[in-house]
Amino acid sequence: MDKKIINMVLPKGFKAAGIHCGLKKKRKDLAVFYSDKLCNVAAAFTRNLVKAAPVVLCQETLKKSDSIQAVLVNSGNANCMTGKQGYQDAVKMQKTAAKSLGLKSHEVLISSTGVIGRPMDMKPLMEGIPVVVDKLSYDGLSQAAEAIMTTDQFVKVSSRTFLCAGENVIISGTGKGAGMIRPDMATMLCYIMTDANISKKMLKKVLIDVNNDTFNSITVDGDMSTNDTLILMSNGLAGNKLIKDAGTDYKIFQDNLKQVMMDLAKMIVSDGEGATKLIEITIVGAKNSSDAEKAASSIANSTLMKCAVHGGDPNWGRVAAACGSSGAKFDPEIMDIKMDNVMFYSKGKVIKNTKEQKQNVFKNKEVSIDVDFHCGTGKSKKYSCDLSKKYIAINAFYTT
Amino acid sequence: MDKKIINMVLPKGFKAAGIHCGLKKKRKDLAVFYSDKLCNVAAAFTRNLVKAAPVVLCQETLKKSDSIQAVLVNSGNANCMTGKQGYQDAVKMQKTAAKSLGLKSHEVLISSTGVIGRPMDMKPLMEGIPVVVDKLSYDGLSQAAEAIMTTDQFVKVSSRTFLCAGENVIISGTGKGAGMIRPDMATMLCYIMTDANISKKMLKKVLIDVNNDTFNSITVDGDMSTNDTLILMSNGLAGNKLIKDAGTDYKIFQDNLKQVMMDLAKMIVSDGEGATKLIEITIVGAKNSSDAEKAASSIANSTLMKCAVHGGDPNWGRVAAACGSSGAKFDPEIMDIKMDNVMFYSKGKVIKNTKEQKQNVFKNKEVSIDVDFHCGTGKSKKYSCDLSKKYIAINAFYTT
Repeated sequence: MDKKIINMVLPKGFKAAGIHCGLKKKRKDLAVFYSDKLCNVAAAFTRNLVKAAPVVLCQETLKKSDSIQAVLVNSGNANCMTGKQGYQDAVKMQKTAAKSLGLKSHEVLISSTGVIGRPMDMKPLMEGIPVVVDKLSYDGLSQAAEAIMTTDQFVKVSSRTFLCAGENVIISGTGKGAGMIRPDMATMLCYIMTDANISKKMLKKVLIDVNNDTFNSITVDGDMSTNDTLILMSNGLAGNKLIKDAGTDYKIFQDNLKQVMMDLAKMIVSDGEGATKLIEITIVGAKNSSDAEKAASSIANSTLMKCAVHGGDPNWGRVAAACGSSGAKFDPEIMDIKMDNVMFYSKGKVIKNTKEQKQNVFKNKEVSIDVDFHCGTGKSKKYSCDLSKKYIAINAFYTT
Repeated sequence: MDKKIINMVLPKGFKAAGIHCGLKKKRKDLAVFYSDKLCNVAAAFTRNLVKAAPVVLCQETLKKSDSIQAVLVNSGNANCMTGKQGYQDAVKMQKTAAKSLGLKSHEVLISSTGVIGRPMDMKPLMEGIPVVVDKLSYDGLSQAAEAIMTTDQFVKVSSRTFLCAGENVIISGTGKGAGMIRPDMATMLCYIMTDANISKKMLKKVLIDVNNDTFNSITVDGDMSTNDTLILMSNGLAGNKLIKDAGTDYKIFQDNLKQVMMDLAKMIVSDGEGATKLIEITIVGAKNSSDAEKAASSIANSTLMKCAVHGGDPNWGRVAAACGSSGAKFDPEIMDIKMDNVMFYSKGKVIKNTKEQKQNVFKNKEVSIDVDFHCGTGKSKKYSCDLSKKYIAINAFYTT
């Protein structure tokens, strides 16, 4: 994965902007994404029972309409656990954005991210909305990407241009994460725009298809923060032949969307608070895919394993223990455990490795843990990051 | 909870010893607990699918016999993921201990704790067994308690003397933990001895009754390491009238056993690697006890919450988020969240507290988080500890 921003172009007809309105002290805190034309939309939200007001409002809005034209996002305040006032503030935010953009309220979605349980500071927000709308431009993606960040250390943008159904199609997206995502309740927000001409039905299908292998592989078990939001908008301005079934064109679109979403997912994990390494966990040979997922998630969420990766300590016993407590069924006597392609345990036997082999494990920025249960065809892949002292420093004093 | 060792006396007829045999570099690493008379026994073991060889052997032994007379424990090596050789080593360890003690093999249980996946170094162990047996004494509890430690920072012993069924009865126990217990796979070992005269059936019942409120409240969801072991032995030498039903005497015995086990459980949490604070999490008003457990466990295992406690940051939004992602059903609009008895959120409203009130939260060694869902009678209590930079330091370089 390359953190460099390869292509910052927005798809045809999309504009974006990001400004500082005053919810945060200095950094940008208000973004807008806009399409010149009404868009088809597909979205996924947190399954946390405690949902922030903007999430509730988005879900209500999408029940009424599945076409939108803009998304307004603030950082600095999550507008969550803010009661009736918080909901009213979210409605006001949506209305004001719609008015500034010359749209109807149900054509605008909104998101918030930041501290939970603080009333929204509506004055800077209301004053900022017309300003950010005024700044909308076809090359405003990086400004908007900056304005959705909270504790993120770098801007996360990805884009692909490809031939699809006879035309050049662009998919561009931005996301923010930080915190370590599940189990740690940091908010993940992601906005993806495309000029592809794709039916509403296929757009919803492709988001579900791709989400499982990308964002749901980092959030693990679908367990999410109070504000998690993923929105995919298509305006059809590429002029390609309508993608309306799961044929070749759909496949091409899906592949490229997956690349963009995987880029963003990996960037989010790599930017886990204080993280220094990206861990790719692969389970194969499980009894079924559910067992594979359980084992992969258990390793991905093991604090001890995250520490071992951080210290470059090939402590494979922790991998075995995490699998064993995951609920997956397997026989420890026939399993294989590899770390960074070095086999440590195979079929009931501890493998003797040289000191040099051991020392090279977990030394790079991207590391891997591979388990083969040799008892079926179930497989799963998850992404995680290491746990460093910096994580504690960031999270011990967040609100104070 | 008081970490001072109040009473180190062993119950009548019990001896213990602890020595350094050479599995660890310098510190004590071999312990034995012995009763002059055959004991009734009740035990609980890890439910991890990956079980260490001594756990497998104990379970096999207890299928054949429910009377034992001694337990041998080594630290420094967990004898886990060590294949057939590991199992044979465990059998040899049991046999050698039995021989030295003049007992039959099935009258001796064994435990191991330490690094996973390393062959047992049998030479020092075999040489050490007769030596430790030779050192058995009625006041050897603290030596034995020392010898079962791994990364523990302090010895964990608790004892109660009380009148029960007409006689003075003693319950004494020792435990070791460190690591943060679930979800972090540190091994918890605990050995409790009593001279009470109690039937086999009642002994098994009392362990189950008490375990749920004590050790299962710190290990959370029964998820355990590969080696977790809890053994309760009674030799009847107090000479009290046999406790054979769940009457008053049983109740008195149960209360005292609970105090001893709660002492040890809290000591284990307080000694979580790098921990500086003990967190008591109380859920009331949940729909049912299962929902209460889910919410309490989710808070207890939240890395973000543990960091907030460490930093003295009253970030109650993380409590709400942890409840919401736990799977428990509740209405965030009517819940209450208190931290160290300061109300932060009540019935949909954020409570305004003074700066001083906020600053006093999470300042003591023992802190509390209380949630009332106001939607039923389900309740649960869990114990956890904060997460510090020291935890990372301890766990990043464990095997290397």
